[in-house]
Amino acid sequence: MKSLLFPLLLASTFAMPSIAATSQQSLAQASQLRDTAIRGHLGYDIVESLTVEVGPRIAGSSADARAVAWAEHKFNQLGFDKVYKQPVTVKHWQRGNASASVTAPFPQPLAITALGGSIATPKDGITAEVVFFDSVKALQAADDATVAGKIVYIDARMHRHREGKEYGLVVAGRAIGASTAANKGAVGLLIRSVGTDKSRMPHTGGMRHKDGQKTIPAAALSTSDAHMLVAMNKRGKPITITFKLGSEMLAPKTSYNVIGEITGSELPDEYILIGAHLDSWDEGTGALDDGAGVGITMAAAHAIKALKPKRTIRVVLFANEEGGLIGAKEYRDANAKVLHKIKLAGESDFGARNIWQFSTQLHPDNLDLAASISKVLHPLSINQGNNKAGGGPDVSILPVKGVPVFSLHQNGTDYFDYHHTANDTLDKIDPAQLQQNVAAWAVVAYLAAQYDGELLALPSK
Amino acid sequence: MKSLLFPLLLASTFAMPSIAATSQQSLAQASQLRDTAIRGHLGYDIVESLTVEVGPRIAGSSADARAVAWAEHKFNQLGFDKVYKQPVTVKHWQRGNASASVTAPFPQPLAITALGGSIATPKDGITAEVVFFDSVKALQAADDATVAGKIVYIDARMHRHREGKEYGLVVAGRAIGASTAANKGAVGLLIRSVGTDKSRMPHTGGMRHKDGQKTIPAAALSTSDAHMLVAMNKRGKPITITFKLGSEMLAPKTSYNVIGEITGSELPDEYILIGAHLDSWDEGTGALDDGAGVGITMAAAHAIKALKPKRTIRVVLFANEEGGLIGAKEYRDANAKVLHKIKLAGESDFGARNIWQFSTQLHPDNLDLAASISKVLHPLSINQGNNKAGGGPDVSILPVKGVPVFSLHQNGTDYFDYHHTANDTLDKIDPAQLQQNVAAWAVVAYLAAQYDGELLALPSK
Repeated sequence: MKSLLFPLLLASTFAMPSIAATSQQSLAQASQLRDTAIRGHLGYDIVESLTVEVGPRIAGSSADARAVAWAEHKFNQLGFDKVYKQPVTVKHWQRGNASASVTAPFPQPLAITALGGSIATPKDGITAEVVFFDSVKALQAADDATVAGKIVYIDARMHRHREGKEYGLVVAGRAIGASTAANKGAVGLLIRSVGTDKSRMPHTGGMRHKDGQKTIPAAALSTSDAHMLVAMNKRGKPITITFKLGSEMLAPKTSYNVIGEITGSELPDEYILIGAHLDSWDEGTGALDDGAGVGITMAAAHAIKALKPKRTIRVVLFANEEGGLIGAKEYRDANAKVLHKIKLAGESDFGARNIWQFSTQLHPDNLDLAASISKVLHPLSINQGNNKAGGGPDVSILPVKGVPVFSLHQNGTDYFDYHHTANDTLDKIDPAQLQQNVAAWAVVAYLAAQYDGELLALPSK
Repeated sequence: MKSLLFPLLLASTFAMPSIAATSQQSLAQASQLRDTAIRGHLGYDIVESLTVEVGPRIAGSSADARAVAWAEHKFNQLGFDKVYKQPVTVKHWQRGNASASVTAPFPQPLAITALGGSIATPKDGITAEVVFFDSVKALQAADDATVAGKIVYIDARMHRHREGKEYGLVVAGRAIGASTAANKGAVGLLIRSVGTDKSRMPHTGGMRHKDGQKTIPAAALSTSDAHMLVAMNKRGKPITITFKLGSEMLAPKTSYNVIGEITGSELPDEYILIGAHLDSWDEGTGALDDGAGVGITMAAAHAIKALKPKRTIRVVLFANEEGGLIGAKEYRDANAKVLHKIKLAGESDFGARNIWQFSTQLHPDNLDLAASISKVLHPLSINQGNNKAGGGPDVSILPVKGVPVFSLHQNGTDYFDYHHTANDTLDKIDPAQLQQNVAAWAVVAYLAAQYDGELLALPSK
């Protein structure tokens, strides 16, 4: 199927890889698509619509239901050929009120937020002396006797990087701090927020709990409060904190993955899947996480529609990503027998800043597609990365099933300033940068849809 | 008394003004003082101590009382020669809870904070349609019928400037919005926060109410919520908001101006007054407003102590500045007959960033002092401004009584990101920039204390 035709129009000073199964015409169309998309504003308009008309939309809430209705309506309004939804049983956790203060030696209030899934404290709260740890590892190594009856505080710090690369490391305290501390007899867990900001906005986020596992009430201090608490601790006197959480895990609810398709003109049964997650944490309006991804992928697919792509472009807005890829797992399982029809997948879920790199996880025989795409992305200041892409949280579980994925890496320098806080709102989005994302996603999805060769499943490992 | 001696040691390429009543020795000492002070960390240590050991300290609160005790103790600990306090009857307003949400057409929560001194809403809150204005002027011009029974929203915007120069203009909505709206029959006031940030941190601040004046519950939306609300309003449907405030004005309390002195070695009865305000708003820890000023002025006076200044250095930590210069007015009135003994006054109350300009309001015959000081400040990248200084909020009421004042203008580029929010915390302070302030304040206070001429009262206007 491969041709030896080279994209002469795009000849550049770069070494030319073997560009085989992408036609000259498709490359020219993709370039035009890129240049048109970057001047648009549909991506921003969609995020504005979602954050203003729905706002915060934690899975299982009435706002989550409104978000599902919003998404169906928006797909239809934008003229997608097929719009449908897939039921997903989601967790339904309610935050309730959260409050905390130092009671001794220097009384003052603390800004906290419950970690996702936390149990409530007793009505009168938990009051206990605080024991300090630098990391969850240090907690794991501690003698149980130093922890029993106390509030464990984990002061793991996250630094600023374009790739957000410390998140995976630092988030351990949030993920397993409560169960670890509970097993040692602690009565509560507080962590320094997993964030790079200096602000009073505490960062929530999910915990990893197995059903039936021992746990305790768990919350995050804002980084400013963490800074203050560490300075207080330097004064050498025992610190007592009281905190109250009114959180509650309610009965599971039905939410939905919402799906819109631009039907392929030649290979309608082969899918290029691009997506984002529709749910958000409950304190911000989920503009960056992941309203941006919703706007980017819906707008990218919409931009492609007029070009009548050969393969079908499928936009999936996943349910309850924040609860642990709940909608994505349902999607994978419900489509277990037809996953081979998904020829490429990617999720946008890292904010709204410029994309700087494109990477893939393609069958080695399809690497010419990555090269073709990279040529068209180059004017957007996007370089080509390796063939080890993860694809984004919700699609990261697909490569093991053979589904090829791609990533468009955004500049995440300030992403963790706002991530999972009340501060994740529309005013953080620069429309021009968002639209660069739309252009890039349109290029990738379109060129994958036009690929003249066979898009192969990943070899099993 | 003036000598014609020129400061040869400090000769520079700058045109040399008439430097008369400042000795070579004082100039050399001041330079050394500057160079020692800038390497210190006492200023930061003091702010840390105040914000960690006391924290938020709104006038009249138990924390305000703890701040007074802290200040007395700190002056004594630092070896000030004389430490005393002056009683001040202060307002005692309690914020209580604040909550708000849009109820129609697109329900979602809003981040608000009560404006200082606001009355409470009824227990079930106020629910009404919102009427939008760009400024308090537009509200003033509106037909009463368009406002009656509604919640007035004022969307006045403040932009970023080094001098914070739009504050005076934009703050009008906060100062008189509630009374203006009340007189037109509105049921509640909401304003866009007077701030330059993009965040969910609403900015509180005082209102100007005459006793007995008609008023209504008043609160500020965070700038992020304001951005969202304006986008919602573009959708053309009537917007209904509900908000609740649990604020309460309690009986006045006694607080204190706390004063520490380094007694003058030759003219102990002449005072160089430097100061800051001890109270803060209740949501942040008042690190920038005005813990920084407390740290800067206490540390500056402490640095001077070893040099045995000729005149007395008096550090005044004013009570209840945020309530409307309450402590400052008491100080002025209680000292009405001896204000002529205050030879120069200045307050530090604009955060903790680098100082870039020194300005004065001196008797014209004393302008040589400004020139001498400016020479010593020049290595700190501080230029000389005019002779129209205001001196800072609490001392701004003294020039009309003849008291000369000075200002050390700080870079306020990000001051209004944090001003009057929960985000006014210690982690916003760069110790190096704070210490540049300490060095500058020490130089000004020391050279004024050493001035060989007579420091004259301002001519009456």
